[in-house]
Amino acid sequence: MAALADDFVADLREWIAIPSIGADPAHHGDVGRSAHWLADALRRDGWPDVRVWDTGPALPAVYACWPAADPDAPTVLVYGHHDVQPVDPVEQWDHPPFEATVVGEELFGRGASDDKGQVAMHLLAVKAHLAALGTDRPSVTLKLFVEGEEESGSPHLLRLIDDHRAELACDLVVFTDTPVYARDAPTICTGQRGVYGAEIVLTGGTSDVHSGRAGGSVPNPATAAARLVAALHDDKGRVTLRDFYADVVEPTDAERADYAALPFDEATWLANSGGAQALTGEEGWSTLERVWVRPTAEVNGIHSGYGGPGLKTIVPAEARIKLSFRLVPDQDPDQVARALRDFVAEHTPAGLHAEVLPAGDGAPPYAVDVTHPAVGALREVFEAAFEQPVRYSRTGGSGPAALLHQRIGVPVVYLGATLPDDRIHAPNERVVVPQLLRGAEAAARLWRLLPGRVS
Amino acid sequence: MAALADDFVADLREWIAIPSIGADPAHHGDVGRSAHWLADALRRDGWPDVRVWDTGPALPAVYACWPAADPDAPTVLVYGHHDVQPVDPVEQWDHPPFEATVVGEELFGRGASDDKGQVAMHLLAVKAHLAALGTDRPSVTLKLFVEGEEESGSPHLLRLIDDHRAELACDLVVFTDTPVYARDAPTICTGQRGVYGAEIVLTGGTSDVHSGRAGGSVPNPATAAARLVAALHDDKGRVTLRDFYADVVEPTDAERADYAALPFDEATWLANSGGAQALTGEEGWSTLERVWVRPTAEVNGIHSGYGGPGLKTIVPAEARIKLSFRLVPDQDPDQVARALRDFVAEHTPAGLHAEVLPAGDGAPPYAVDVTHPAVGALREVFEAAFEQPVRYSRTGGSGPAALLHQRIGVPVVYLGATLPDDRIHAPNERVVVPQLLRGAEAAARLWRLLPGRVS
Ligand SMILES: [Zn+2]
Ligand SMILES: [Zn+2]
Repeated sequence: MAALADDFVADLREWIAIPSIGADPAHHGDVGRSAHWLADALRRDGWPDVRVWDTGPALPAVYACWPAADPDAPTVLVYGHHDVQPVDPVEQWDHPPFEATVVGEELFGRGASDDKGQVAMHLLAVKAHLAALGTDRPSVTLKLFVEGEEESGSPHLLRLIDDHRAELACDLVVFTDTPVYARDAPTICTGQRGVYGAEIVLTGGTSDVHSGRAGGSVPNPATAAARLVAALHDDKGRVTLRDFYADVVEPTDAERADYAALPFDEATWLANSGGAQALTGEEGWSTLERVWVRPTAEVNGIHSGYGGPGLKTIVPAEARIKLSFRLVPDQDPDQVARALRDFVAEHTPAGLHAEVLPAGDGAPPYAVDVTHPAVGALREVFEAAFEQPVRYSRTGGSGPAALLHQRIGVPVVYLGATLPDDRIHAPNERVVVPQLLRGAEAAARLWRLLPGRVS
Repeated sequence: MAALADDFVADLREWIAIPSIGADPAHHGDVGRSAHWLADALRRDGWPDVRVWDTGPALPAVYACWPAADPDAPTVLVYGHHDVQPVDPVEQWDHPPFEATVVGEELFGRGASDDKGQVAMHLLAVKAHLAALGTDRPSVTLKLFVEGEEESGSPHLLRLIDDHRAELACDLVVFTDTPVYARDAPTICTGQRGVYGAEIVLTGGTSDVHSGRAGGSVPNPATAAARLVAALHDDKGRVTLRDFYADVVEPTDAERADYAALPFDEATWLANSGGAQALTGEEGWSTLERVWVRPTAEVNGIHSGYGGPGLKTIVPAEARIKLSFRLVPDQDPDQVARALRDFVAEHTPAGLHAEVLPAGDGAPPYAVDVTHPAVGALREVFEAAFEQPVRYSRTGGSGPAALLHQRIGVPVVYLGATLPDDRIHAPNERVVVPQLLRGAEAAARLWRLLPGRVS
């Protein structure tokens, strides 16, 4: 792998130089350039079938296929994305975000970790895999699917999948957009939480009213909003929506044992949580469990009435709450939405009108069964590549894994090697290059291992 | 009174034409012009001692004194104000706010009701009083004190009083800045609620954090703010601050009976309360009682986290609550402030930092003892002037009556004749001229009646 490392870094630098910010229409041309850069790199590496899907409405995605020598070998689809987050506030970057800069083992730049670095890792893995085999055909039929809208919530992913059913058909999806737990604690991610977001609007009068005139005699939407939010959790930190936990699948004993065995430093966790001052959460679960395998309800914003300097003694006419629920298998976002509407109706006092509006793009939760043979294979190749014990982890965020699973109809496993402190989505994003080299090593081994395990 | 009415309206028009918006530094010259207009009017009417207090820091106030013929007659200080509210949004006025326009019985213009109209009513009353007596000395020693900062919260009133102790010395303050209950239900106001305002700031981390990363594991200031607000009332609508009701003086049976006898139209009340949809409030009290004689806690604003379009799945770093408490005698704003600080400390979960900041200018509550002879005299002269039964009322808002009472050391009674639907502080402020004429009639009678009642 070391022999290929210099070329790998040079290639990744080139790709990072293309500012493929999908959320910014001014950069949509760059998203196209980024897709073509990747397609050219794949062709140069010898991939026999490379396509840029750029007929819209999705931003350009890249598809490639490299058939196995054995027609009965399993087909694996590697999913990643080549669009990147905006770079504001750009003045907080120590190096220009689109001029990749190497400092020791770190490579700084937007997309270095999320997700160009991990996609490049797979290109490297295939080269290493073929070099180790001494052939020009991989042990599994490899497909690569790299979309350009992940950072925008993958709004056209469903359509891309349905438009390209034949190309994307496979036996296993390898999702490559998650980190390991820590550099000294490599892990196999086995799931991501889903998300359902909503805005609750409580309306009283048609205008604010002076509290000297009416205060104490008419309902206050801000107070009602507060009571509604307060009622959303019980005193054990559990969400009180009807049947909220009915479909929750608890992690296996093996998973819980693994989580408990991971190193956990409270101070670091708090520092990485916006400088929070204390841990809290649902009773009976560890911090990692609260974030990985337990569903939550979080107030993302609440706004009502006067917020300027001094005092304005009004009863506000309206209050707005932004809420998001992180979901775990097998919770159904639609069921949560229904329960929320009922909850709001129950908690709206007489004289106020309540509306529940969907907010943001939801995503169902996903987790793979850890007894699936591909998960065991992943653990083996990670232990070989990282030369350490490897445990299970999950991530608390959300992504399109469930969508890929549902529409393609096969299990999704996670192969990611980046680190949680790579500052993805933030200034000074970086990747630790040896992590990607080890990840490539693991992937190269995985392609050899899978034929006996997955069919 | 009818003979004097034309001059009265002409004078009031002139005064309204001076835009004495005290809260706007660009209009501070107009506040001075307004004070001098009043001083000139008083001199023209024959007041022997007229002064403009304009040496700062208070905006110009007017003082005048007209000694009684009898050196043993009581001294009455009439309090009012000549500054007015801003006129925004000016496009909602049907007539120019500073060109008084008469339509039928109504005179439209900023300050027509609050408070130039009521001060002018007293000038008219003195003329009528002297005309009725056929002398040039009133039956009581009359003092007039018209400040220029009431709409800004009377920030220098304490200093004005203390700087002019001798001039302001009196046996009774007549406060002339409140309405009667309704045109068909004239009332004597007997008190105003006080107010204490605060801002509560709850801080978690130093920055917002992604809820996919930390959601469910660290305290959410928005949720904590909601729980704090929810805990502020019990399920009977009572405020839960420690000892909040300990010093509350309940209204007398006579007052409660009067309130119950007043006409009350729920639809009108709701329409005048910003279009509210239902009545609510503390159990066991009528709507008028809730607003006049019961203390309240009202959320004036709550702001935390994201409020833009769509969803931003963050745990906010901070939440801010603007709260105001309307207070009744003998509640002490300082005691409420202390109880609030303790309440916030008790309701701040581990990991959050809470601050309680004062917001706005507080005011203590005030009510006059309805058995005071001046109140009885007021009722008599109102019944004579308005030719209807007159009952007690109060107002739910706040003003400087308690300050005048405390610093001058005498009872304060209320003599106001305007109407609650005069749209004070709003576009299309108006006054119903016959109300002011009747109010002047009542005041003229009061000066004759008081010598036997108050000393
Ligand atoms: Zn990503
Ligand atoms: Zn006023």
